[in-house]
Amino acid sequence: MTNALHVSAPEGVPFIDFSRELDFPVAEVFRAHRDPELIVQWLGPRGLKMEIDHYDFTTGGSYKYTHTGPDGVAYDFSGIFHTVRENEFAIQTFEFSGYPDVVSIESQTFEDLGDGRTRLTAHAVYPSMEARDGMAASGMEEGLGEGYDRLEELLGTLSEKTPQEAS
Amino acid sequence: MTNALHVSAPEGVPFIDFSRELDFPVAEVFRAHRDPELIVQWLGPRGLKMEIDHYDFTTGGSYKYTHTGPDGVAYDFSGIFHTVRENEFAIQTFEFSGYPDVVSIESQTFEDLGDGRTRLTAHAVYPSMEARDGMAASGMEEGLGEGYDRLEELLGTLSEKTPQEAS
Repeated sequence: MTNALHVSAPEGVPFIDFSRELDFPVAEVFRAHRDPELIVQWLGPRGLKMEIDHYDFTTGGSYKYTHTGPDGVAYDFSGIFHTVRENEFAIQTFEFSGYPDVVSIESQTFEDLGDGRTRLTAHAVYPSMEARDGMAASGMEEGLGEGYDRLEELLGTLSEKTPQEAS
Repeated sequence: MTNALHVSAPEGVPFIDFSRELDFPVAEVFRAHRDPELIVQWLGPRGLKMEIDHYDFTTGGSYKYTHTGPDGVAYDFSGIFHTVRENEFAIQTFEFSGYPDVVSIESQTFEDLGDGRTRLTAHAVYPSMEARDGMAASGMEEGLGEGYDRLEELLGTLSEKTPQEAS
């Protein structure tokens, strides 16, 4: 069984908060957020093809990637990492090519729960209520949930390749 | 006489909006936002000493500067430029060292009003109502207003040095 994704879009303020626990150590979870060769294997919903233009998960670094659906339609995403602290914390901007100049900002905490488990907690802030509501209605929750399920599957595969206490 | 600064902090949402017209052409106003040697002469309230660590006003660039008050107390500010379009538009993150990891994001439009005049319009978004209210109560409006007054004084000085239609 997988861990549950908790998402909330509070009334009246342009935020989306979510959290997800993972049955893997914080260093492994962080590595899967930093290494483009791993990110490309889990970020986003199933059934999309992801291609990374660049992904520099460091303070001051930037990223750009494309998700292509089964219909061949491509979606570009890009942003900048304002802060990245290893195994701990990141703040990044986020822009979808379909809504140019509508840029959100997301902070993400990597919390070591002990026993080789991690909790991810994120707070995303949108420049308008319309932008927040549009994101919440876009299938974001399903995409996030599938992404984290894929992340756990990937980390399970990596653990099998290099046995450790992880799982 | 100087142009008026209009600031609003709308009820219930974590935004601050402001606008300011300037009696100078958009290219001059933009240049004063890009060139660190000019920024250091106007950004922030009167009576503070500004020192720039770095200020790279380009897409993907970053900045860091320090304001030091007459009491010798120093305040650091830093962030990243998500987007910069010449004479037109910029989006940047903003962090004050006094509130680490509380990062806001601000979009700014440079609008050519014709006749050598420009309107700056900005929309700043905070990660919580508390952060927005704290910023609004921090003397931000006075600091912004004095900064733009200083900007007009600076641009006036530059126009005298290189005569043009500007003023």
